[in-house]
Amino acid sequence: MEFTLDQIAALINGKVEGDGSLKVSRLDKIQEGKPGGIAFLSNEKYEQFIYETEATAVIVSENFKPARSIKCNLIRVKNAYTGFSQLLEAYSNITKMGKVGVEQPSYFDESSVQGDAGYRGAFSYVGKNCKLGNGVKIHAHSYIGDNVKIGDHTIIHPGAKICSDTVIGSHCEIHPGAVIGSDGFGFAPQEDGSYKTIPQIGNVIIEDYVSIGANATIDCATMGSTLIKKGAKIDNLVQIAHNVIVGENTVIASQTGISGSTEIGNNCVIAGQVGIVGHIKIADKTTIGAKTGISRNINESGKTLFGFVGFDIKDFLKSYSIFKNLPSLQDRIKELEKKQ
Amino acid sequence: MEFTLDQIAALINGKVEGDGSLKVSRLDKIQEGKPGGIAFLSNEKYEQFIYETEATAVIVSENFKPARSIKCNLIRVKNAYTGFSQLLEAYSNITKMGKVGVEQPSYFDESSVQGDAGYRGAFSYVGKNCKLGNGVKIHAHSYIGDNVKIGDHTIIHPGAKICSDTVIGSHCEIHPGAVIGSDGFGFAPQEDGSYKTIPQIGNVIIEDYVSIGANATIDCATMGSTLIKKGAKIDNLVQIAHNVIVGENTVIASQTGISGSTEIGNNCVIAGQVGIVGHIKIADKTTIGAKTGISRNINESGKTLFGFVGFDIKDFLKSYSIFKNLPSLQDRIKELEKKQ
Amino acid sequence: MEFTLDQIAALINGKVEGDGSLKVSRLDKIQEGKPGGIAFLSNEKYEQFIYETEATAVIVSENFKPARSIKCNLIRVKNAYTGFSQLLEAYSNITKMGKVGVEQPSYFDESSVQGDAGYRGAFSYVGKNCKLGNGVKIHAHSYIGDNVKIGDHTIIHPGAKICSDTVIGSHCEIHPGAVIGSDGFGFAPQEDGSYKTIPQIGNVIIEDYVSIGANATIDCATMGSTLIKKGAKIDNLVQIAHNVIVGENTVIASQTGISGSTEIGNNCVIAGQVGIVGHIKIADKTTIGAKTGISRNINESGKTLFGFVGFDIKDFLKSYSIFKNLPSLQDRIKELEKKQ
Repeated sequence: MEFTLDQIAALINGKVEGDGSLKVSRLDKIQEGKPGGIAFLSNEKYEQFIYETEATAVIVSENFKPARSIKCNLIRVKNAYTGFSQLLEAYSNITKMGKVGVEQPSYFDESSVQGDAGYRGAFSYVGKNCKLGNGVKIHAHSYIGDNVKIGDHTIIHPGAKICSDTVIGSHCEIHPGAVIGSDGFGFAPQEDGSYKTIPQIGNVIIEDYVSIGANATIDCATMGSTLIKKGAKIDNLVQIAHNVIVGENTVIASQTGISGSTEIGNNCVIAGQVGIVGHIKIADKTTIGAKTGISRNINESGKTLFGFVGFDIKDFLKSYSIFKNLPSLQDRIKELEKKQ
Repeated sequence: MEFTLDQIAALINGKVEGDGSLKVSRLDKIQEGKPGGIAFLSNEKYEQFIYETEATAVIVSENFKPARSIKCNLIRVKNAYTGFSQLLEAYSNITKMGKVGVEQPSYFDESSVQGDAGYRGAFSYVGKNCKLGNGVKIHAHSYIGDNVKIGDHTIIHPGAKICSDTVIGSHCEIHPGAVIGSDGFGFAPQEDGSYKTIPQIGNVIIEDYVSIGANATIDCATMGSTLIKKGAKIDNLVQIAHNVIVGENTVIASQTGISGSTEIGNNCVIAGQVGIVGHIKIADKTTIGAKTGISRNINESGKTLFGFVGFDIKDFLKSYSIFKNLPSLQDRIKELEKKQ
Repeated sequence: MEFTLDQIAALINGKVEGDGSLKVSRLDKIQEGKPGGIAFLSNEKYEQFIYETEATAVIVSENFKPARSIKCNLIRVKNAYTGFSQLLEAYSNITKMGKVGVEQPSYFDESSVQGDAGYRGAFSYVGKNCKLGNGVKIHAHSYIGDNVKIGDHTIIHPGAKICSDTVIGSHCEIHPGAVIGSDGFGFAPQEDGSYKTIPQIGNVIIEDYVSIGANATIDCATMGSTLIKKGAKIDNLVQIAHNVIVGENTVIASQTGISGSTEIGNNCVIAGQVGIVGHIKIADKTTIGAKTGISRNINESGKTLFGFVGFDIKDFLKSYSIFKNLPSLQDRIKELEKKQ
């Protein structure tokens, strides 16, 4: 999509210095600007790049005074960062939200309903008795099972799989390939060493403003619901087991796994590749460092945890700094022993 | 799906106390019971909830005597837990096994055959020369390559990908998004630092009663077969590399990875986020704790391993408890040295 | 596909000893050979198997002299390993590259173009303004968004998702279920504890001869490009975050995660389940052991790193060997203290 500099200046309430009829089709970093792109200059550290950039235009603040001559066009706004953010959001809305209507072939059971202004891509599948709100986008290859509810303005990206009975709130994004509501991992050991599958009849409930990453997996509850609360952000390839509760505005980075029936509090920050055992509770505002393993309740809120089995981070770093010196420590002990 | 309490009582050989014409459509936990749901009371610890539950009905054992008045309806059976389990299984069979027939559009090469009472969802793909047994369910968006064999009553969930030449036994479940038979990760280093792809021409064989989790990946063998033996249960996001063998009734939890050509014995239990190097053997009945790394053969069966490179769990915990005290240990050494 | 031994001998420039009209349809390991298969004998260690194998034929070197009688047919070539490699590659080309043409139903926006000799499977989706080169294979259920460019002879395996604006070079393989160009994980914290989504408007650029594993995820850049350079090989379930750069001929094994804006050098080898923090640089030719965590720049090229926070491997192993002996070390300190 192409826009003239004049159109962009009108959108972000700015003033063009240069040729307002020139067209741009891309947002660039100032240090990597190329013809046809528009960048911004906010941080003084980057000022050097405005004299060299090949970008067609740069958004600058009202009070910017170039030290030397500039070859690109300028759009002056009150605050360059704010102006660029507005442009970024407008651009993102146009490119991501633009699709409306139904592509064919697609499958939509006649017992299901979809609100206004929605999109369903080719090869999307919607099963029985589903209710999709207004502005819901079901991209190509998405699977929506039976009895699924999806709130207004939620986006189901290509190839995401929403299994039967799942409930998703409004303004959520389910990224490509994510699986929501697959069977929990429950098997009853039998006397002969084999396992019998325990039927998993619960569901997944995802509240409003939640994001689920690409190829992440969230299992349904054995009974009841696996629950992802409002505003939680879950990254790619994360595993959430049956009956887990993830609190409001909790952030979970890539490849972390949370075992069955564990409850994570509100406003926690959990880094990548963390593992958390089942049937425990993590207090609100807990921060957990990358690769940490957590095997017990965290009762006090606001703690930062790190290390192989989830020490307090200060304790871990103390022990760990000595771990590095174990060889010399051992030598010192030998020396002491010799002197006895 | 709705059933009357009379219908349910007939199914589980029980007797209604209350209004047998009332309908329920959901199995609830007793502590979270809502109108339209049926729960059960087996463990005495939960007795308090039967006096408060909003569930329409609760399944109780013959000899249950309420201490106070109860507002919900009851279904009395010999053993409440057994009765509920029967109901759970019946419910699960109805909701999961119910689909029969072929939805359109779907793709089925004319050289392939499918047995009786099967299901193929819209946008399912079945390539050339496939043999699908009786009662096989190929859900929407599933991909079945060429020359694939699938035994009776196996379920391929939405969007699972079964690559060419894979053999799957009967009564298996392949969960959504799982990839079976993708190319092994094999590259031959060249003199200029680049890598040449080694053709991967083997396949994957999955025996009966195996479960493969959502978005798990199982690579085909370079030559020969990657083999998942009877009754093995593999969780979401697990990686099984080329030529691996997983033994009978072995359970592998989420996000664990097993490198090429390793053989895992029968009846092992491997927790989440474990990593196992290639070309080793793990004895039968080995238990491996979460996040453990295993880099050598485990020859003796029945061991429990834990820790960064797979110690015996007792040894690990001994060292680890001291690791926590390294700072004080170091202080003690300093003190000793001063006294010399 | 079946071939006579005469046909195979012609292909690999060999000479049949036995019945050249017999047909084989499979490449076998010599120790697992079955009728209808052809194996090879190169390494003397395996010679015993040629006297027992049930394979229809075995490829042997010119100078092979059997010690006893052999029941299978032979194909003699100059070098058995080379001959078999030729056969392996031919077989792989036939089975993998064979598909040409377009299966229906498939979706291809009229603004997009595809070169000659390509393949598009049923239920494949190609959005607007895409340019697909010659010999490109888009397998069933693959998703190609808008404005995507794919170079000659690249294979997009079943169910892979290539999001809008992605650029992929020639001779690449994107394995089943991989997600390329999904949104980066970027959220700006708000005063009330909630997070606002930061629009992700960059893309992913994948150069020539790159392989991306099954169900791996590569996020688009916030702005600019996430870049996978020429010849890089990335395994199943790997996570590459926004704005990461992976160098030429770098190999990354399964379940490793690389956080945002990190730059990995050329010719690195990164084992499985490694975690690398964001905004750091890893020098060329760095080797990183399995499960290692890397939290700082690696400036010197050619190092081998291992351990929980990425020690030099020799230092780690020294400390680790003592870690195992911490209990006895503690006892020795106690003993020393008693003697004071």
